[in-house]
Amino acid sequence: MTTVESQVEDAGPATSAKWVYRFTEGNAGIRDLLGGKGAGVAEMTRAGMPVPPGFTITTEACNEYYRLGERFPDGLWEQVGSGLGEVEEATGKKFGEPSNPLLVSVRSGAKFSMPGMMDTVLNLGLNDETVDGLAELTGNRRFAVDAYRRLIQMYGKIVLNIDPAVFEHILEQEKQEVGATTDADLPTEALENIVGRFKEVVSRESGKPFPPDPHDQLRGAISAVFESWNSNRAKAYRAYNKIPDDLGTAVNVQTMVFGNMGNDSGTGVAFTRNPSTGEDRLFGEYLLNAQGEDVVAGIRTPQPISTLERDMPEVYGQFREIARRLERHYKDMQDLEFTIERGKLYMLQTRSGKRTAAAAVKIAADMVREGLIDQPTAVLRVEAAHVVQLLLPRFEQRSKDEAIAAGRLLAQGLNASPGAATGRAIFDADRAAELGKSEAVVLVRPETSPDDVHGMIQARGILTARGGATSHAAVVARGMGKPCVAGTESLRIDLNARTMTAGNVDAPVQEGDFISIDGSTGEVFAGEIATVQPDFANETDLRQILDWADEIRRLQVWANGDYPRDAELARAYGAEGIGLCRTEHMFFETDRLPVVRRMILNADEASRLLESLRSLEASEGTDSHKVEAARSRVEASPAVRSYLDSLKQLEDLQKEDFKGVLEAMQGLPVVIRLIDPPLHEFLPSLEELLVEVTEIRVSSPESPELREKEELLSAVQRMHEMNPMLGLRGIRLGILYPEIIDMQVHAIMTAAVELTNAGLIVKPEIMVPLVGTVNEMSTARNRIQAVVDRVLSGRENAPKVEYKIGTMIEIPRAALTAGEIAGSAEFFSFGTNDLTQTTYGYSRDDAEGKFLLRYVEMKILPSNPFQELDREGVGRLMEIAVREGRAARPDLEVGICGEHGGDPSSIEFCNSIGLNYVSCSPFRVPVARLAAAQSALQAQERDR
Amino acid sequence: MTTVESQVEDAGPATSAKWVYRFTEGNAGIRDLLGGKGAGVAEMTRAGMPVPPGFTITTEACNEYYRLGERFPDGLWEQVGSGLGEVEEATGKKFGEPSNPLLVSVRSGAKFSMPGMMDTVLNLGLNDETVDGLAELTGNRRFAVDAYRRLIQMYGKIVLNIDPAVFEHILEQEKQEVGATTDADLPTEALENIVGRFKEVVSRESGKPFPPDPHDQLRGAISAVFESWNSNRAKAYRAYNKIPDDLGTAVNVQTMVFGNMGNDSGTGVAFTRNPSTGEDRLFGEYLLNAQGEDVVAGIRTPQPISTLERDMPEVYGQFREIARRLERHYKDMQDLEFTIERGKLYMLQTRSGKRTAAAAVKIAADMVREGLIDQPTAVLRVEAAHVVQLLLPRFEQRSKDEAIAAGRLLAQGLNASPGAATGRAIFDADRAAELGKSEAVVLVRPETSPDDVHGMIQARGILTARGGATSHAAVVARGMGKPCVAGTESLRIDLNARTMTAGNVDAPVQEGDFISIDGSTGEVFAGEIATVQPDFANETDLRQILDWADEIRRLQVWANGDYPRDAELARAYGAEGIGLCRTEHMFFETDRLPVVRRMILNADEASRLLESLRSLEASEGTDSHKVEAARSRVEASPAVRSYLDSLKQLEDLQKEDFKGVLEAMQGLPVVIRLIDPPLHEFLPSLEELLVEVTEIRVSSPESPELREKEELLSAVQRMHEMNPMLGLRGIRLGILYPEIIDMQVHAIMTAAVELTNAGLIVKPEIMVPLVGTVNEMSTARNRIQAVVDRVLSGRENAPKVEYKIGTMIEIPRAALTAGEIAGSAEFFSFGTNDLTQTTYGYSRDDAEGKFLLRYVEMKILPSNPFQELDREGVGRLMEIAVREGRAARPDLEVGICGEHGGDPSSIEFCNSIGLNYVSCSPFRVPVARLAAAQSALQAQERDR
Repeated sequence: MTTVESQVEDAGPATSAKWVYRFTEGNAGIRDLLGGKGAGVAEMTRAGMPVPPGFTITTEACNEYYRLGERFPDGLWEQVGSGLGEVEEATGKKFGEPSNPLLVSVRSGAKFSMPGMMDTVLNLGLNDETVDGLAELTGNRRFAVDAYRRLIQMYGKIVLNIDPAVFEHILEQEKQEVGATTDADLPTEALENIVGRFKEVVSRESGKPFPPDPHDQLRGAISAVFESWNSNRAKAYRAYNKIPDDLGTAVNVQTMVFGNMGNDSGTGVAFTRNPSTGEDRLFGEYLLNAQGEDVVAGIRTPQPISTLERDMPEVYGQFREIARRLERHYKDMQDLEFTIERGKLYMLQTRSGKRTAAAAVKIAADMVREGLIDQPTAVLRVEAAHVVQLLLPRFEQRSKDEAIAAGRLLAQGLNASPGAATGRAIFDADRAAELGKSEAVVLVRPETSPDDVHGMIQARGILTARGGATSHAAVVARGMGKPCVAGTESLRIDLNARTMTAGNVDAPVQEGDFISIDGSTGEVFAGEIATVQPDFANETDLRQILDWADEIRRLQVWANGDYPRDAELARAYGAEGIGLCRTEHMFFETDRLPVVRRMILNADEASRLLESLRSLEASEGTDSHKVEAARSRVEASPAVRSYLDSLKQLEDLQKEDFKGVLEAMQGLPVVIRLIDPPLHEFLPSLEELLVEVTEIRVSSPESPELREKEELLSAVQRMHEMNPMLGLRGIRLGILYPEIIDMQVHAIMTAAVELTNAGLIVKPEIMVPLVGTVNEMSTARNRIQAVVDRVLSGRENAPKVEYKIGTMIEIPRAALTAGEIAGSAEFFSFGTNDLTQTTYGYSRDDAEGKFLLRYVEMKILPSNPFQELDREGVGRLMEIAVREGRAARPDLEVGICGEHGGDPSSIEFCNSIGLNYVSCSPFRVPVARLAAAQSALQAQERDR
Repeated sequence: MTTVESQVEDAGPATSAKWVYRFTEGNAGIRDLLGGKGAGVAEMTRAGMPVPPGFTITTEACNEYYRLGERFPDGLWEQVGSGLGEVEEATGKKFGEPSNPLLVSVRSGAKFSMPGMMDTVLNLGLNDETVDGLAELTGNRRFAVDAYRRLIQMYGKIVLNIDPAVFEHILEQEKQEVGATTDADLPTEALENIVGRFKEVVSRESGKPFPPDPHDQLRGAISAVFESWNSNRAKAYRAYNKIPDDLGTAVNVQTMVFGNMGNDSGTGVAFTRNPSTGEDRLFGEYLLNAQGEDVVAGIRTPQPISTLERDMPEVYGQFREIARRLERHYKDMQDLEFTIERGKLYMLQTRSGKRTAAAAVKIAADMVREGLIDQPTAVLRVEAAHVVQLLLPRFEQRSKDEAIAAGRLLAQGLNASPGAATGRAIFDADRAAELGKSEAVVLVRPETSPDDVHGMIQARGILTARGGATSHAAVVARGMGKPCVAGTESLRIDLNARTMTAGNVDAPVQEGDFISIDGSTGEVFAGEIATVQPDFANETDLRQILDWADEIRRLQVWANGDYPRDAELARAYGAEGIGLCRTEHMFFETDRLPVVRRMILNADEASRLLESLRSLEASEGTDSHKVEAARSRVEASPAVRSYLDSLKQLEDLQKEDFKGVLEAMQGLPVVIRLIDPPLHEFLPSLEELLVEVTEIRVSSPESPELREKEELLSAVQRMHEMNPMLGLRGIRLGILYPEIIDMQVHAIMTAAVELTNAGLIVKPEIMVPLVGTVNEMSTARNRIQAVVDRVLSGRENAPKVEYKIGTMIEIPRAALTAGEIAGSAEFFSFGTNDLTQTTYGYSRDDAEGKFLLRYVEMKILPSNPFQELDREGVGRLMEIAVREGRAARPDLEVGICGEHGGDPSSIEFCNSIGLNYVSCSPFRVPVARLAAAQSALQAQERDR
């Protein structure tokens, strides 16, 4: 580390820097410096609450420690010493003084909570002398020796990196020797033995004796906490949770208090409200005569916090009052840690409590009603993920309670992708892919790889034993929107026996047995658990929060929907328009497909004949007899007749479809996209036809069916494309086969006129897909306008219909020439699915399975750009299009209808570049309403 | 037209505007106003050359005429009157004066020559009275009456829009009646009869008598010339030649002189140098006792200009001197028109002469040697199209001369796409597609449509009877780089009889007969004509011009080439580097393909195993025994062994390939692109395999071959992609299968080291394809750098090899994030083929056949963006990339290796945005050198 040191020797802060804050000096305003825990205890100390005295070493000191090559910055140790002096004064005890020893804990405390990731050392200050003093002082030698034993064990593990198994092994040996079942059964003598053996371990493993000087202990513990900031698991946690690496951790040095000094002592944790349901009642648990570790170890069952009222009514009253004050102070539900030492209550920690989706929503709504927070704060308190969870299928509570009661909770893994799933456990992807077509299956694997993707596609949920939140299983499952529990380390999966065994359950799960997983909580159950689909209508608190969000947001929220039922759902979820109605989905319905195919198979020839007739009519000086003759000839052509006839049939069907959607959305705009997919999508698959025709050719070459199939095959081959995504689709079809868009526009406008005549207000917006040049747009626009004019002017007393003609912006060139295109378009709608495909050059069909998710795993991409909008590339094109489009047409309406319209981060971006609306799937509308409001609040915050 | 008139009534120029310039007033500096012809006669007049007096009505007057709704602007007619007065004064004749009548011609004259597009009326001033005066004055009544006949005929056709066939019919009747073979045989009486009948036609067809007043004649003729500017054919010509519609035409009114006044009169055209070969000798032809029309009509055979020296030595001397002076004045080869009236020479026109490619090059080179022009001017005089033509296959001159002598020149069509082709005439696309695989065919169609494209692909050339320069045939043929003669109106194609008949040849061409077409000249021949591939080494003048170009240009010219033979060719053509060496083409060679396939079929499993081993090695604290065990396991896996083994085999082959290319280009940079295409391109086609497997399954299900084929099919299906263009290719392969790029980089650097050790200077540049994110580039760069370092440091006394690591910029996101990417790349090379595909969302494979060329025909696209770079979309991305890339790395080397690198317009753009080089196919290198120099000169001009 000398290199680093010499590089920076002149660059450090002055030695006069303040590295240490006493609890009495700090406050929540300098949380960046003190970390969450340090700020919390400082606030409580300032408010006069009973907090064991102590001080906080700042995050800056941690960063400086690393900058200097893992060396204490100048002045730090002196300031620690003076902090310690004040603690000694406040407690009347003295660090290392055998007669009245001060014991301290050293705990990490970063700005953002990183549960389980960082280190703690307790009972610092004990050595062979002070342990006697403590024994005398407390009148409890066993307690003192046990505290000493704990110190050496923790110090060995955390400061000296000694394998903890070595200590555990000695502990087990001693218990067996004296016949003790638990640690608590060990007599004092045994503990003294253990202390001796532990000290030997330390000498042997670290090459040095356990440091007898408490100051050496303290220095080692502070360094260890600093270093825990850069442990691999801490770094991985930060990377996943997008916490910057340069924040550093603070270190809290605090007087030890003991909950294990008899039945007038205890320790516990509590939430100021119920973190599962949000109910406004203290919720928590505590143990009499115990230390924090004991609660965690799970040997004794903690009591609910309410029993403290019976055990120590005065302490309970004091605690309840403190909890109430802290909640009012922080204006949020608090997660509290406390210890009672010989009847005296000490507060060790307060922080905002983690909560379930249901609790988050209820607490936010309740706190507004209680006048504790305002509506914008409530809107910011609910996370988009909460809304998603509340609206995803989840386990029915009673069914889940029964499962737990029956001991069917097998294991707890990482909640890698939310939602609940029940199905047969299947241990390989091929089987899952096969069986998954007919039955509900959950794919269970030690870990997944790209080879498993086909099985994941067919599974209801995914369960793995290994891998974290960015493992293949987690990333792919989130990509697919399927529940996933990952990294369930306590599962033992035997692929040969095809069984799965959980740590605390004897009978293994056999392949084919039902299991249930909750991707929102990480729970894994044996057997089936009933799932429920939440009813938005009953989510009154959520609806209340979203109503408040509606008052805050600038961005409108529309929904994508092709059918009247989608439109109704979207409206129920609060959509303010339909941003994408795909007309061609209607073509796929079984009764229509034959008509569509007939239309397609004649389109080429018929369109060419009709085009030649049009150019004959348009050319100057053609004599009218000649034109008449040509018209009769063209109109008599079987291809033209069949083409126009099938279009007419489709038009009648489409008109009814459009009437349905427009009626469901009456009063609100409905953006209807003209035909988009390549026509061959409506024909049978080339590969299947090839096999079919070959089979007939070889087995029954005389079959009359052969010729017919061969003709179809030849048509499919003619229309086959190497890269259909970049082929003949969208407006390209509309230019080559203008009769199809004529038909569609006619159906839309006739539907609109009929509804308007029936007294409804309808607002169709006709959208041209895949425009890349202004000429495509102007050609399409002229064609559409002509049909619109024909419908509106062709009727007596034609009603006034409010309509717009606009375009998707979904290929880069459209964005780059948006200024020109806006001249012919009254609205833009970003098709960010295709825009992402073309901007990255990724075919989504191919990329996600083949390399894209692997790219996310490898951190080559920060996230899947089809889920979270890529601001640098795709977003830059969007900004160009919005700026230059609005410069050309200031009242241009701009929205987004790609899947990103329902993603909170993408919505924030859409808000920032001034879109008018986002449009997403109906189920995402509530999330989008919330995210739009949060974006508006964040923007206000930034502008302030 | 009243609307237009009223809209603009207050906006016209003041009535004092100058609409008319006498020839004595004008000069070449106001060519915009006077048009080419007007400027030419004014210059000659100013130089004291014998020009019949006259004046020019400006192009502004023409534009104003249209602005006013086809009405003469105020003051124009008065200025024409005063111009006429001065002409009368100069000639001593008087307009409409029977005793000494002035006759004038009215000719159009636009800024840019539009041959055959615009109108002329001669002999204005004749009527029933003046015709007698002219007869008397010339002593030649027949001449006078014939001039009158010509006036009425031309006036009827051009001013009054009477069908010319009506006049021709009368002429024919009269000739039959008097037994005359040609017009010249008609006696005076017959001509007088004809005049009478022509006047009747005029009265009947136009409803008014032929105007007797010469001033009315003049006014009508001026209007007619103005109107010819907006005729359909003139508009089409301008659209094709990109001449703006708002230039307008000037009108030249000039005293008539007559070459048909006896054997001391004559008329002719001449070039100051030979326009075919460029030889520095007067070249032209003339007819004694004839008018210009007679030369055109082709009834009498004109004499070479040299015979004039014999016929009238003095006139010849005067003409030669004038020609010399004009050439020196204009510093360019001139195309001259002259008339000799009774021994006196009159100059009627001078303009820069059209010339063949060979002539253009020779003249430019000669004129520099003569000190007439400087080198930059010479470089600007040669067109890129000339260079293309000079290097395309062309007919062997002797073989062509023989064909012409044998009367095998069938017809003349439009030169729609350059180059010469010989082959069997085939009348339908299906047959052409079939036969074209084994024989040379020329597809002959009345016109083509997208249905014919498969036939066009297999044909050597395309010949059509209908359609202009933007017809389907022309556009597609240019797109394919094939010769095409279009719109050969004199061809009669009988699709039923499968024959083709030309106007002036009796025997029809039968299907299967050989024909030859020259797309550079539009000539169509019966039978075969030998073609020659020009030898660049012998093109000394062209090489001279290109050497001068090299001194002027800033942009370097590199070539794309995959093999040593390409590199040698490129060097011979003057390439200064290889801009794209595609490594995977080497994989397709027959002996290597099995190795490549073995590598691919094992890549997935092997790469995954190797990756897991790498991450095991990288993870902290893994014990070394465990790693060793894993390594043995992985290395023993059959997939890994086979994969690494085939890579090793490929590496040895590739090293030799690279040595070849690097050696051929020694001293110059060679950009080698790492593997790019999707791996399934190296496997058999899915469709063929499907058919094969199905056949075996049905016919011999027990065949041992079946299992093997099925396994291959399953591998191919696994690797199949919906849109391979946007799939797993380029650096995406390199990230997933890093062993492949390791192999390639190792081969490149080992080759470089071995050559350097052998004393050669080699400059490999390693190029990463399809980068879209900076992380891809930095990951690739680290991997490449590690291999490079290994090769260079692993050898004792490793030589210093100059190398670069860079990337293609070929997807929009790379351009949009170029600033970041430049941090890891020392060079950018625009892959504008793919960049055009992704920016437009066009799959070239699908788009060109299915809609793109139709888009060009319909003017939705101005040109095929795969040929001419789209500046608005693709170009804008390039500008962003260059600007932001250079901002991040000022010495960033930037080039282009897409096909656009050889297109002159695209080269101009590349020059304007500051690229370092363009790289094109070796054959296009000479064009690119010229275009690069011309761009530099144009840029200098603009900056001035």
